[in-house]
Amino acid sequence: MALWSGRFTESVSEFTQRFGASLPVDKALYAQDIAGSTAHARMLAAQGVISQDDADAIAAGLARIKERIETGDFAFDINDEDIHMSVERALIADIGDAGARLHTGRSRNDQVATDTRLFAKARCTDLMEANVALRRALIVQAEAHPDIIMPGYTHLQHAQPVLFAHHMLAYTWMLARDFERLAAARRAADASPLGSAALAGTTYPLDRQMTAEALGFARVIPNSLDAVSDRDFLLDLSYACSVSCMHLSRLCEEIVLWSSAEFGFVELSDAFSTGSSIMPQKKNPDFAELIRGKTGRVVGDLVALLVTMKALPLAYNKDLQEDKEGAIDAAKTLEECLVCAAGMVETMSIKPENMRAQAKKGYLAATDVADYLAKKGMPFRRAHEVVGHLVLLCEQRGCDLEDLTLADFQAESDLFEADIVSSLDLEAIVAARTTIGGTGNAAVAEQLAQAKAVLSTDETTVSN
Amino acid sequence: MALWSGRFTESVSEFTQRFGASLPVDKALYAQDIAGSTAHARMLAAQGVISQDDADAIAAGLARIKERIETGDFAFDINDEDIHMSVERALIADIGDAGARLHTGRSRNDQVATDTRLFAKARCTDLMEANVALRRALIVQAEAHPDIIMPGYTHLQHAQPVLFAHHMLAYTWMLARDFERLAAARRAADASPLGSAALAGTTYPLDRQMTAEALGFARVIPNSLDAVSDRDFLLDLSYACSVSCMHLSRLCEEIVLWSSAEFGFVELSDAFSTGSSIMPQKKNPDFAELIRGKTGRVVGDLVALLVTMKALPLAYNKDLQEDKEGAIDAAKTLEECLVCAAGMVETMSIKPENMRAQAKKGYLAATDVADYLAKKGMPFRRAHEVVGHLVLLCEQRGCDLEDLTLADFQAESDLFEADIVSSLDLEAIVAARTTIGGTGNAAVAEQLAQAKAVLSTDETTVSN
Amino acid sequence: MALWSGRFTESVSEFTQRFGASLPVDKALYAQDIAGSTAHARMLAAQGVISQDDADAIAAGLARIKERIETGDFAFDINDEDIHMSVERALIADIGDAGARLHTGRSRNDQVATDTRLFAKARCTDLMEANVALRRALIVQAEAHPDIIMPGYTHLQHAQPVLFAHHMLAYTWMLARDFERLAAARRAADASPLGSAALAGTTYPLDRQMTAEALGFARVIPNSLDAVSDRDFLLDLSYACSVSCMHLSRLCEEIVLWSSAEFGFVELSDAFSTGSSIMPQKKNPDFAELIRGKTGRVVGDLVALLVTMKALPLAYNKDLQEDKEGAIDAAKTLEECLVCAAGMVETMSIKPENMRAQAKKGYLAATDVADYLAKKGMPFRRAHEVVGHLVLLCEQRGCDLEDLTLADFQAESDLFEADIVSSLDLEAIVAARTTIGGTGNAAVAEQLAQAKAVLSTDETTVSN
Amino acid sequence: MALWSGRFTESVSEFTQRFGASLPVDKALYAQDIAGSTAHARMLAAQGVISQDDADAIAAGLARIKERIETGDFAFDINDEDIHMSVERALIADIGDAGARLHTGRSRNDQVATDTRLFAKARCTDLMEANVALRRALIVQAEAHPDIIMPGYTHLQHAQPVLFAHHMLAYTWMLARDFERLAAARRAADASPLGSAALAGTTYPLDRQMTAEALGFARVIPNSLDAVSDRDFLLDLSYACSVSCMHLSRLCEEIVLWSSAEFGFVELSDAFSTGSSIMPQKKNPDFAELIRGKTGRVVGDLVALLVTMKALPLAYNKDLQEDKEGAIDAAKTLEECLVCAAGMVETMSIKPENMRAQAKKGYLAATDVADYLAKKGMPFRRAHEVVGHLVLLCEQRGCDLEDLTLADFQAESDLFEADIVSSLDLEAIVAARTTIGGTGNAAVAEQLAQAKAVLSTDETTVSN
Repeated sequence: MALWSGRFTESVSEFTQRFGASLPVDKALYAQDIAGSTAHARMLAAQGVISQDDADAIAAGLARIKERIETGDFAFDINDEDIHMSVERALIADIGDAGARLHTGRSRNDQVATDTRLFAKARCTDLMEANVALRRALIVQAEAHPDIIMPGYTHLQHAQPVLFAHHMLAYTWMLARDFERLAAARRAADASPLGSAALAGTTYPLDRQMTAEALGFARVIPNSLDAVSDRDFLLDLSYACSVSCMHLSRLCEEIVLWSSAEFGFVELSDAFSTGSSIMPQKKNPDFAELIRGKTGRVVGDLVALLVTMKALPLAYNKDLQEDKEGAIDAAKTLEECLVCAAGMVETMSIKPENMRAQAKKGYLAATDVADYLAKKGMPFRRAHEVVGHLVLLCEQRGCDLEDLTLADFQAESDLFEADIVSSLDLEAIVAARTTIGGTGNAAVAEQLAQAKAVLSTDETTVSN
Repeated sequence: MALWSGRFTESVSEFTQRFGASLPVDKALYAQDIAGSTAHARMLAAQGVISQDDADAIAAGLARIKERIETGDFAFDINDEDIHMSVERALIADIGDAGARLHTGRSRNDQVATDTRLFAKARCTDLMEANVALRRALIVQAEAHPDIIMPGYTHLQHAQPVLFAHHMLAYTWMLARDFERLAAARRAADASPLGSAALAGTTYPLDRQMTAEALGFARVIPNSLDAVSDRDFLLDLSYACSVSCMHLSRLCEEIVLWSSAEFGFVELSDAFSTGSSIMPQKKNPDFAELIRGKTGRVVGDLVALLVTMKALPLAYNKDLQEDKEGAIDAAKTLEECLVCAAGMVETMSIKPENMRAQAKKGYLAATDVADYLAKKGMPFRRAHEVVGHLVLLCEQRGCDLEDLTLADFQAESDLFEADIVSSLDLEAIVAARTTIGGTGNAAVAEQLAQAKAVLSTDETTVSN
Repeated sequence: MALWSGRFTESVSEFTQRFGASLPVDKALYAQDIAGSTAHARMLAAQGVISQDDADAIAAGLARIKERIETGDFAFDINDEDIHMSVERALIADIGDAGARLHTGRSRNDQVATDTRLFAKARCTDLMEANVALRRALIVQAEAHPDIIMPGYTHLQHAQPVLFAHHMLAYTWMLARDFERLAAARRAADASPLGSAALAGTTYPLDRQMTAEALGFARVIPNSLDAVSDRDFLLDLSYACSVSCMHLSRLCEEIVLWSSAEFGFVELSDAFSTGSSIMPQKKNPDFAELIRGKTGRVVGDLVALLVTMKALPLAYNKDLQEDKEGAIDAAKTLEECLVCAAGMVETMSIKPENMRAQAKKGYLAATDVADYLAKKGMPFRRAHEVVGHLVLLCEQRGCDLEDLTLADFQAESDLFEADIVSSLDLEAIVAARTTIGGTGNAAVAEQLAQAKAVLSTDETTVSN
Repeated sequence: MALWSGRFTESVSEFTQRFGASLPVDKALYAQDIAGSTAHARMLAAQGVISQDDADAIAAGLARIKERIETGDFAFDINDEDIHMSVERALIADIGDAGARLHTGRSRNDQVATDTRLFAKARCTDLMEANVALRRALIVQAEAHPDIIMPGYTHLQHAQPVLFAHHMLAYTWMLARDFERLAAARRAADASPLGSAALAGTTYPLDRQMTAEALGFARVIPNSLDAVSDRDFLLDLSYACSVSCMHLSRLCEEIVLWSSAEFGFVELSDAFSTGSSIMPQKKNPDFAELIRGKTGRVVGDLVALLVTMKALPLAYNKDLQEDKEGAIDAAKTLEECLVCAAGMVETMSIKPENMRAQAKKGYLAATDVADYLAKKGMPFRRAHEVVGHLVLLCEQRGCDLEDLTLADFQAESDLFEADIVSSLDLEAIVAARTTIGGTGNAAVAEQLAQAKAVLSTDETTVSN
């Protein structure tokens, strides 16, 4: 063929074999494939479709193949196209005719859907585990530093002082939502397509409930066309990963900022930073940057699957072969990012003095001075104006609001009393924010208890 | 300024005012803004922060503003920047000082989060309603045509015959999953940020539970930084819309195919198709195409928000102003697509004879002939070979498998008996697929009952 | 219809009319539609298909419609579905039968493609203009501050000192590439589909070259199927906008950082920042954040169109109606972002003392000390070690490398001579980077000249 | 560390080493890395920075390493982190001190940018080659079937008859635009960052022009900050791949449709289709589906990089390490898709009789009948009405327009003359579309010549 003249060294059939094969990707699903086949064989025997002896031979043969794969004693051959044929061919080579009866009443269409769902469930569980580990690390940091004050930001401008613990806990709530999305993805995967055959069900008396239960599926998918063409559970997984990675990108953006010379709020441990081959003084927050950067690939994985699924008619189409690689990548990426973030958070040192120094810049007490007057009856707009004058006075003197004397305050309004001075130190400002969810020390302590309770519940959920 | 010389007719301040304003988008949230302010004022009074008289004046004033907006008697001014300032300015103009006390212990940061969550909840409910309406339409079609047989496809090739009802029901399961995602998005939105103020809580004794209950929120957000910077609920909504729109793109792809001259399986009603200004004979499935095409914009809306959120430090950043337009667009688009699809499905005519004619092409009984032999003990691979010969015979004669005589069958294998002939008509093939979720008539009847039960549950959920 | 019972107040036909209409979007193309129709009519007359009188009447009628639209004296009616029918109906109402002859040898398929291409070309030109304006603003800043030194960053850590001018110029090169992409998008749009009719060309003797020239198109599209189904030019435009917006997000990220209390490198003008209604001291870089956030929507617009186009068979499909809104939004968004960024950059104040103070932190001379030794023959790895000792000494003393005495240096290596001390001040370090593209003052001056030359060329290209 | 207890078997340092390493991806760039280092060493010698002997030793050592890698005799070690350190370490092990001098005046930041640009250029060239190969295949099909008529579609409805050659050629124009985008991506990559060092240039007298020329770069990047942080060329490559893959998804959608039983327009060769393990009669267009499905991953790759780049401050950030994998994947995917599509198109059989049978359905002559009357002076709207009556007559008789007699025509209008009958056969209708770009045989012949001319030009461009 003219096309293959020239620089191509492989033949047409080598090319199409390689291009069409899913084996390089789906061999990661070998354990699920073998579990699914074992359950199918046992059910076939129970229903009298194959003999019990055949089922036993199949189960034993599959167990041997699994061991060979896990000990590296199994040669995958691209000519097998996919993991299903790899395993089946090896089984027939091992046990003969009984192996050839395994595929009765089954199609690769329901088989691959089964494997992929089992795989997705397991990955969700791994991710839920990594999720709670990072939350633990954040909670440890929050608990270890209950009283450290840092500037709270809006628009990356100093706004009001907040507790460092409050800031850490903010991320535990994002991650708690991520946990729920992962749990939802796991539930979405938790339904058995096995027994749907190619697209229409089969004429064999399969017991779909039996295989579903044997494989730990919560339920049976009620429509065979849907069973072989649905990939929502992979979308749900990729989406859960995308949002969680986005959350990590926010945390890592802050860690990068906090590690800068300008902020200097934290110092990463040597284990989670890198040096420069040129500049001995450098300590780069490489891992925070890398996690932030990996958000892109996970979002890309989600988009890829949405694009692939668009406008596919029922039921199975080969386009669906493109479903797994992205979802596997998204799950692997997020898991590593969660693990890395947990290590980084757990081992970073806090520099309270730098946080405090910055918290004292920018007149962070201004809101509280205005509130002080407003609570004494001054309309807020007038109070706002008074504070403006006081800030101007500070700027002229090069000092901060808490450096002003009572006389300075009273020169602007006789509503000011002695307590104004004491109410302006950082601790007082923070403590005064007593509403639920606020940064006041008592409120944060309550929030911490709540975060730990939710964490505890979720830890139980992981293994259920 | 040099920049603004030339073709710009607006001044710098006009430009920045317009460019920075969110009013053109967030004025859609006027009802939520007014509800939130009303609840806040009543709580302030209950907590003794403002007087009961002030609270009453505020509530009455806000009600008047709402009415003016709804009757078109309210002039939005871009100089107000956003819906919050529009309403507040009008309130102060109406009731004076009392209006100026409304914003006590509140910031636009928690206010906009409250409004957006109320809005998102309402849109989810609308979408859930539209979702069940489409499922009803699909179920009506399935119920109205219990016995119609069409070709089932894999790779868009004829594979095995299926019931048209089975095919319709496949979409109800996709939509049932969409419903769950919408419900999850609604739960995600169902938490009150009100009382978080700018980022850190406030020094006023706000009762966050009270406002949450008054606004119908299920719970209070436990961290003020998270409360003003979290937009996960909009991501969840946009994601739910993306997957559902992808599902509709699959249905619409099929409707376009089925409406073609080559397929001819359905005829759309005149209300849901369009003609050509040139060719009087044409009837285009415009609406199916349009829905299919709109999948793009909804996925785009999801991507947009994920990109915007990436790497934002805490807490509020102006980037977040970009959150609403895409989510509003995604929800509106999906709702219209669901409504349109329901109308299209409900009113389309089925052409059973064309479906049947196609179902008879392509030797769709081949699998069943092989199964027939396998069940009589012939190894499947040998059976597969026998069928290959029979298909070849048909091709030579230009006939189908069911046109062969018993003698033809027995010439290939003496396992064939008289029942082979009767077992090859389409009805028999379909009926034989008796497994749960299969296309057999009895199995589909059961599936239909199950789909209706799930629908019924979901209909109840919509309004809860 | 059951569907429309309940909360829907519009009828089915109202709904489908509204849902299917493109008028709300494509009325923005009225000028292009009228220009295209005028050119078509004149060509029809030149080819003898219609009379010269008819062509004159059409041209005059269209001119009147254009004027009515621009003076607000034209009522668009959703029942006209699109801009083409709006204009044609008004034309026929105005001039009668002659108007009815306009559509001869034309279809809305080639008409809308023509309009959209004209529109896209014009938007590209606008964007190219806004692009060069921002580059001018950056160059003005670079030229106004030729000698200001700031820390150069990698990993947001201080790395080596650089000229502020060098940093500003980096963005002009990104924008120069954006200009090329916009120019490519303009060339992609610059081909005439007019005369391709519905999909196959027509039986009328149309002169496609004539209409192409009249409309300013550079060439005629050589395949009628491609002409009516190609939207690559909109993808090119959306892509150019996406990359450019990504570049702006980088610039704006830096402006946000630089405006923070921690950095304090720049102060935005009041015109391009906003205050807080609560905290009188705050000055938020709202516009930089907003531009950064808008990157999301532009990327979303690009993704939307790619998704919509995926897997569409030839030729025209209604899905294509979804092509314009996103591209229009992307172009409008980028234009406003460019304009806003130009104003922000042009008016921001530099704070050289803060830049310098930071540039003196972090031993930025370390690389140069190592280079000093390496140039005198010491292997680089040994030199690196020596610098390590010197940095340690500084840390112990709490000073910087340039605070060390000659004796301090010579205690570590006798290769150090008196010139080491003078070579470590920031000016010397910067000036020593003399390679092309380096931050040395002379190199930057050359680079500035080059940036201005490219700008000048591009300014000429805008209007060609 | 608590984190690593439990199921993790690797240590923290093993984890961070693996997670942070780019070697698994960037070892694909070994040839480029070695070429870049060789050029750098020669330039250093030419500038007197290192000795000629050292440069010779370096060049020879690098050549040996390259050979070892290509013969599989090189053990990559994850501890080397990236390809740069792998090669450098091996070089020093081989030639000692001279090897340690290679990195003088260079940083991994400019080194990786150089490698990646060289790699991207080469991939663009490969893709341009694969692009012209597919165009050749399409042109061969067009030329081999100059007179075959098929239905032309809009909305997947029969619209007007077109030549199959015309349809094939439509895709060559899409691909010609893809070629231009690939060429633009190659130009974007074609600039040398080498000599920019870490971010600011160096104090060594590097000759950047010399290394640029030695490596075949067209120009030198004029700003060192931009040189190490720009990844636009990878975006351009990923974008070019995305659009081209989208085009292939359209072609493949049509091939899938055409291969269906309902259409039956083409038959794919056995080499480019697959059977079913169950149904011997099946022949699936697997490869067309797979290409269509792969559009998703390529678009995902583009989105991933756009997300990663968003809001990165200058200059180098570790996020950029995520740049290569997606671009490499996009290029590899598109190349394989182009090659596969070329093989599929080249070897598919056309079924003219099925195309013709469909082209005779749906009154495709209707437009021409109306045009016939309009050309004789009847207003188009009246002509449209006449055709409506004729179509109705056909429907009543169950015949097509060309089955009507002259008397039938004249009963509706006396403008009909004898030539109407002959003008309605498919050949006449097609031939009458004589305008440039139309489907008339002469016009298509001209278009074919034009397509071949553009192809010829592009073939020359590939290797320039």
